[in-house]
Amino acid sequence: MARFLKNREESKGQSPGALIFIGEKKTTSVQARVIDYDSTILTEQELSHIKDGSHFKQTNTVTWLNINGLHDIEKIKEVGQNFDLHPLVMEDILNTGQRPKVEDFNAYIFIVLKMIRFDTETEMIFNEQLSIVLGDNFLVTFQEQPGDVFEPVRKRIRRQKSRIRGSGTDYLAYSLLDTVVDNYIHIIEVIGEKIEDLEEVILEGNDTTVMEKINAFKREINYLRKSIRPAREAILHLSRLDSDLFQESTIPFLKDLQDLINQATEAIDTYRDLLTDQLNIYNSVMANKMNDIMKILTIFAAIFIPLTFIAGIYGTNFEYLPELHYKYSYAVFWTALIVIAGALLVFFKRKRWL
Amino acid sequence: MARFLKNREESKGQSPGALIFIGEKKTTSVQARVIDYDSTILTEQELSHIKDGSHFKQTNTVTWLNINGLHDIEKIKEVGQNFDLHPLVMEDILNTGQRPKVEDFNAYIFIVLKMIRFDTETEMIFNEQLSIVLGDNFLVTFQEQPGDVFEPVRKRIRRQKSRIRGSGTDYLAYSLLDTVVDNYIHIIEVIGEKIEDLEEVILEGNDTTVMEKINAFKREINYLRKSIRPAREAILHLSRLDSDLFQESTIPFLKDLQDLINQATEAIDTYRDLLTDQLNIYNSVMANKMNDIMKILTIFAAIFIPLTFIAGIYGTNFEYLPELHYKYSYAVFWTALIVIAGALLVFFKRKRWL
Amino acid sequence: MARFLKNREESKGQSPGALIFIGEKKTTSVQARVIDYDSTILTEQELSHIKDGSHFKQTNTVTWLNINGLHDIEKIKEVGQNFDLHPLVMEDILNTGQRPKVEDFNAYIFIVLKMIRFDTETEMIFNEQLSIVLGDNFLVTFQEQPGDVFEPVRKRIRRQKSRIRGSGTDYLAYSLLDTVVDNYIHIIEVIGEKIEDLEEVILEGNDTTVMEKINAFKREINYLRKSIRPAREAILHLSRLDSDLFQESTIPFLKDLQDLINQATEAIDTYRDLLTDQLNIYNSVMANKMNDIMKILTIFAAIFIPLTFIAGIYGTNFEYLPELHYKYSYAVFWTALIVIAGALLVFFKRKRWL
Amino acid sequence: MARFLKNREESKGQSPGALIFIGEKKTTSVQARVIDYDSTILTEQELSHIKDGSHFKQTNTVTWLNINGLHDIEKIKEVGQNFDLHPLVMEDILNTGQRPKVEDFNAYIFIVLKMIRFDTETEMIFNEQLSIVLGDNFLVTFQEQPGDVFEPVRKRIRRQKSRIRGSGTDYLAYSLLDTVVDNYIHIIEVIGEKIEDLEEVILEGNDTTVMEKINAFKREINYLRKSIRPAREAILHLSRLDSDLFQESTIPFLKDLQDLINQATEAIDTYRDLLTDQLNIYNSVMANKMNDIMKILTIFAAIFIPLTFIAGIYGTNFEYLPELHYKYSYAVFWTALIVIAGALLVFFKRKRWL
Amino acid sequence: MARFLKNREESKGQSPGALIFIGEKKTTSVQARVIDYDSTILTEQELSHIKDGSHFKQTNTVTWLNINGLHDIEKIKEVGQNFDLHPLVMEDILNTGQRPKVEDFNAYIFIVLKMIRFDTETEMIFNEQLSIVLGDNFLVTFQEQPGDVFEPVRKRIRRQKSRIRGSGTDYLAYSLLDTVVDNYIHIIEVIGEKIEDLEEVILEGNDTTVMEKINAFKREINYLRKSIRPAREAILHLSRLDSDLFQESTIPFLKDLQDLINQATEAIDTYRDLLTDQLNIYNSVMANKMNDIMKILTIFAAIFIPLTFIAGIYGTNFEYLPELHYKYSYAVFWTALIVIAGALLVFFKRKRWL
Repeated sequence: MARFLKNREESKGQSPGALIFIGEKKTTSVQARVIDYDSTILTEQELSHIKDGSHFKQTNTVTWLNINGLHDIEKIKEVGQNFDLHPLVMEDILNTGQRPKVEDFNAYIFIVLKMIRFDTETEMIFNEQLSIVLGDNFLVTFQEQPGDVFEPVRKRIRRQKSRIRGSGTDYLAYSLLDTVVDNYIHIIEVIGEKIEDLEEVILEGNDTTVMEKINAFKREINYLRKSIRPAREAILHLSRLDSDLFQESTIPFLKDLQDLINQATEAIDTYRDLLTDQLNIYNSVMANKMNDIMKILTIFAAIFIPLTFIAGIYGTNFEYLPELHYKYSYAVFWTALIVIAGALLVFFKRKRWL
Repeated sequence: MARFLKNREESKGQSPGALIFIGEKKTTSVQARVIDYDSTILTEQELSHIKDGSHFKQTNTVTWLNINGLHDIEKIKEVGQNFDLHPLVMEDILNTGQRPKVEDFNAYIFIVLKMIRFDTETEMIFNEQLSIVLGDNFLVTFQEQPGDVFEPVRKRIRRQKSRIRGSGTDYLAYSLLDTVVDNYIHIIEVIGEKIEDLEEVILEGNDTTVMEKINAFKREINYLRKSIRPAREAILHLSRLDSDLFQESTIPFLKDLQDLINQATEAIDTYRDLLTDQLNIYNSVMANKMNDIMKILTIFAAIFIPLTFIAGIYGTNFEYLPELHYKYSYAVFWTALIVIAGALLVFFKRKRWL
Repeated sequence: MARFLKNREESKGQSPGALIFIGEKKTTSVQARVIDYDSTILTEQELSHIKDGSHFKQTNTVTWLNINGLHDIEKIKEVGQNFDLHPLVMEDILNTGQRPKVEDFNAYIFIVLKMIRFDTETEMIFNEQLSIVLGDNFLVTFQEQPGDVFEPVRKRIRRQKSRIRGSGTDYLAYSLLDTVVDNYIHIIEVIGEKIEDLEEVILEGNDTTVMEKINAFKREINYLRKSIRPAREAILHLSRLDSDLFQESTIPFLKDLQDLINQATEAIDTYRDLLTDQLNIYNSVMANKMNDIMKILTIFAAIFIPLTFIAGIYGTNFEYLPELHYKYSYAVFWTALIVIAGALLVFFKRKRWL
Repeated sequence: MARFLKNREESKGQSPGALIFIGEKKTTSVQARVIDYDSTILTEQELSHIKDGSHFKQTNTVTWLNINGLHDIEKIKEVGQNFDLHPLVMEDILNTGQRPKVEDFNAYIFIVLKMIRFDTETEMIFNEQLSIVLGDNFLVTFQEQPGDVFEPVRKRIRRQKSRIRGSGTDYLAYSLLDTVVDNYIHIIEVIGEKIEDLEEVILEGNDTTVMEKINAFKREINYLRKSIRPAREAILHLSRLDSDLFQESTIPFLKDLQDLINQATEAIDTYRDLLTDQLNIYNSVMANKMNDIMKILTIFAAIFIPLTFIAGIYGTNFEYLPELHYKYSYAVFWTALIVIAGALLVFFKRKRWL
Repeated sequence: MARFLKNREESKGQSPGALIFIGEKKTTSVQARVIDYDSTILTEQELSHIKDGSHFKQTNTVTWLNINGLHDIEKIKEVGQNFDLHPLVMEDILNTGQRPKVEDFNAYIFIVLKMIRFDTETEMIFNEQLSIVLGDNFLVTFQEQPGDVFEPVRKRIRRQKSRIRGSGTDYLAYSLLDTVVDNYIHIIEVIGEKIEDLEEVILEGNDTTVMEKINAFKREINYLRKSIRPAREAILHLSRLDSDLFQESTIPFLKDLQDLINQATEAIDTYRDLLTDQLNIYNSVMANKMNDIMKILTIFAAIFIPLTFIAGIYGTNFEYLPELHYKYSYAVFWTALIVIAGALLVFFKRKRWL
């Protein structure tokens, strides 16, 4: 499967807004979990039916509904109806090949991002789509599978005195985005370290798998970039959105988030350039080694081929070959060989090949 | 023929606005088909004369006139007169080398795009010009030949309860554009998969046709890019057009379309970079193999050339060559050969050539 | 002479606005031809003295004065005085190394472009400066030499019912620019075809002049680019100029012209990239051939050098060399040679060199 | 550790605004030193407790509090409370992986920059985070360790008649920034000189460590760039900030500062390009040397291999080999050898290999 | 010394605005020459003391004070006090590593440019800082050494009827800038010609110093670019400056100047690209030659090594070697050699190596 583009084949020719799940089914059942809180109250609840949570929406508390698993279209539809989402939003949530973006629908803001996971064994990056719907007093998150990076946020919610408990949905949204971007930076750092370590191996020039490694890292960095660059655009867009849903006091946090994602994209570009440089260096190392190989060959050939020729001459069987019969011929012969070999050695020494 | 630029020779020196068909004639006869609908009524009709359809224009229903084949200039002219099109629009419809674009003529919007087809046998991409004239209650599409990607849209029109039946010409236009762009993404994905598959073959380094394949894909990607990049501009322009022809409710769909075409262009750029990287990797693989070849040559030459020289010495016919007459000479000779060969093997082992 | 920059040496230190002809003298005498027309009247006349044509200026008809040859500074000056041109305009007309541009002097618009000619024999591009002064009811064109691409425009003027006869100087200016840009596209197409044809030759890898051809085309494409890119800027500037000299009805034609010049610059960029790709492919082809050459050398050397060594051993003249005297020695010797050669062949087969 | 990205692992999942020191602990104790001055008064004092300095804040004099060492979070917190800093500012001060930036909090401006140090022994660049909080009548600087480039600024403050004594905190801030950027330029110059010196070594082509040096400089230049490019943005942002904290008379100094940082970034880009060029040149030098090596090998092989073959023929033991028995055979043999060798030498001379 | 960045070491830590001359002392004494003129009056005078010229300032005539040599800080200071210049302007005049720029101080405009000189012997470019202070009725120019490109301007001033005599300081400033930029173009052309001439030498591939030349030109072009690119910005800035110091009638001349500097920067970019292309072509030529060398080696080796082996076989001394004793053995032996050699020649011919 083309890794850099998700197959939309199944939805081809479908009415836009038709709800079809596009992606691999990564979990068996759809889980829905609601956390409802303000500075004093905190409720956590697993919902078996989406509508069980509808009363949370009425209250003024912050309601965070998290959905794990997208393949049960009926359930997702129920969420959509419950929160009155635009058909295109519903479609985007289900189409996991979505490009990260932020869209303002006045009543709510719709945010799509990728959550990144680095598999240390295969050294490959996997991503999962995270859709966030940020409303006045509710926030819904959609993930493809259980297991996320949001546990620390939940912990902070559970601590009553935390800033998050005293703030609205906008601060919750910021906290989630911050966690996602923090995770980007962590993963870039892990890969970056591996890339920086390659350098030494390259300069030695003995590891023939280096090239494959460079290639593999380049591919992963490109894959990362594909998720993170549009995320930067999206976050920039978010902080420029003049929406009532964001309170004045949250704005500095969004700016901080922007700094963070800028750092992530700059680091990715740095590592991309580094890999390109490394391939160039590797090629130079190879050319250098080639020169060394050829020098050795040339030295051996240039010294012994002429000597062999001379030996060949006195190996001929001509009847009248006077040198063969002199007493000191053999000694002279050896002397000549040694002189020639010596002269060639001096020649190559002068050329700095030795 | 230059594939990246269409021959305009025939029109050279012609008055701008002169109607000349530029392109290959890809179909024998011009077909005109009208679909007229609103939420309750639906009429489909093949027109033998363009004016047979003029009464559709008067009504408030959505009228979609589709023309297949452009070489019958008289007929195209008739359409132009019927819908009161600017001479430049007529010229652009007939000149199939047009760059994708959107132009607002107040009474109607004129859209030019390319429809893409990937021939799996030749692995080449072909394109066909699609011109759309979007008016208040009519929409005319011009194609170079029969057979298009719009069948699913027609099916949706035939379903009475579909969103398309309840919407105006703007939504119909969006649906057509969406189908075209969806098809771009599908084709990029097909090619992308083939490109990603190349990687393994490259690293093995045994397939000598790899380079031709990289080259061919690069050419096709560039060809795609030539159609799709200006399409992105055009769609961006369309969604920023402050035209009365687009209703408020259609705007989110245009934004969605923009996301889609952005995804397409990003994927194309990714695959272009990938191909460049692949060529670099291929060159490194070649350099690596070269080193291997030379190592083998050097090892053989460096070991056997000196040995041959020594054998040559004792092949000489000097009368006074004392070593020839000692009893253990031959054994010593062999020992010397083996010691020298061994020393060289150790030398190459140390250099990690073996 | 530096082809990418015109020698201004002669004008160095001159007062700006000093009238000096910079360029090669490409024609012997200066020709001045006037075409005066409106929808009913048409006069064509060769002027021997510029002032002979002054009465045309008074009338409301469109007056097109075309000057061929710039070296007779007095005559050019006369034109300047006649139409009241700014000294800098006069200087720019005479300095044929001018960068394409558009300048608005309120009373008239001054346009500088390059006319391109492709010499099929030398496969080189030559350019000639075209200066256009567009006034209210007059248009003056300055060319370096006779012979231009404007004949079809003149023909259209002679046809009484043509659009051009019913329009003003602005439409005439547009027609001339359109003809020039059309010619750009035609020439790019001619070169483009040749470039695309190179590809096959490169992949065969036998034509050693390919590199020179790639280089030559690159140079010509760069030369073209130097003329056409600023022309794009100039035409963009023209269509954004809020000048009274352009009527509302001419604006769509200017936009069309912009599309055309965009197509030209995009095609140039495409062909530049193509040539870069081709050089890369060529280098890979060369590396591939190198590998093939070295494989052949290595196979020959690796097989025969050891065999020769063995033959050398039994060519030695040691007195006590027992193998020489056994009856089946020679047969065993041959067998050994064949076994060794066979083993090496298998080795190379395994490495896929054969 | 990934050098191009600082490990934030420790802060992962922490509440944004949580105060955690991220970085290496570079000094043992936190030092706080206050300099308080106006045109007449000057006080310098080492503070053991931050609050000891609070009375300075009340006065209208300029108060510069400099903190060395960030690991004692309690002390830093105290400073924050004393000057009423936003939690995000506190977090950014402690997170030493911060990207250079300028942020306006109305009551104060927060500036983050990197101070650069070039270790001449390892030829590596190290950076240290400098945070500046610029208030109405106070300025706080935070450094990771003692030892800075600000001593000359302090000296100027101690001179009573200096411009700095007559100006406000904004001029002090400018002076510090100017010192930091001056230091950038100095370090770029030191590295630049080393890079420019490489050129000669490359063209000689004998130093095999050149490649490693190019690589090392490229890495350091990239590292520098990572600190300096965002600093340029930050300083640009600063000079566009319409803040009351900057007096009219300080604006020209900020513009001067901008010129300086522009010069720094341009120089960095120039040296980056230079290094890329140098690697290309190095590869060409290598290819050239390779050609030389191969020419020598080919000349030796092409001359002596045929000669050896001829000698080999007359070394055969055929019974009926008539040439062996002629009297002048040996002389003819030698003549033939010399003629062949001579012909080959002429051949190589013609090819300009000799 | 780093050529791409001027050592500011000496000024490090100095108060901004401190007057220190940075650069080489290029002349022994500071010369000050004043030219004072309007359309009727003209005075030229060498000043031994700056204040001798102060009376010129009072008059309404245009006063051009030119200073050659900057190392006598006292004198420069005097000029500064005389014309009431900002300390930063004074600092910039003395710091000859300044980046070209234009700054508006209301009372005067401060312009910094580089004057370029091409030393034909070393084929290197040198630059000298030119600072211009343009006031209401005075203009001061500061140069590092005597000898400049302004003589033609002075000549024009001396001619009473020239445009310059009838215009103000703004036109004088324009004339000086025009002369400087004209000189840029002249020098680019001189270098450009040399670069274009390289092409032929490269394709021949015999001149081994080509690479050094490409490298040297690249360095000089980069050096030029460093002076000229910011000059373009500066001139653009100048023509957009809405300053009272520039009269309406001078504006078209500034636009012309902009065209000129655009041409210069485009030519520089073209030549940079050309040099990059040339290096690529050179590498391909080298690879081609390498292939040729290897083909020759392979042909010689592949033909003679097998033949030598066969000769070796019949040089063995086996007692029972029947072929040695047949009468036609030697003839058959020769025939075999010739057949083998012939077959190999055909093989190489087929491969198109011959």
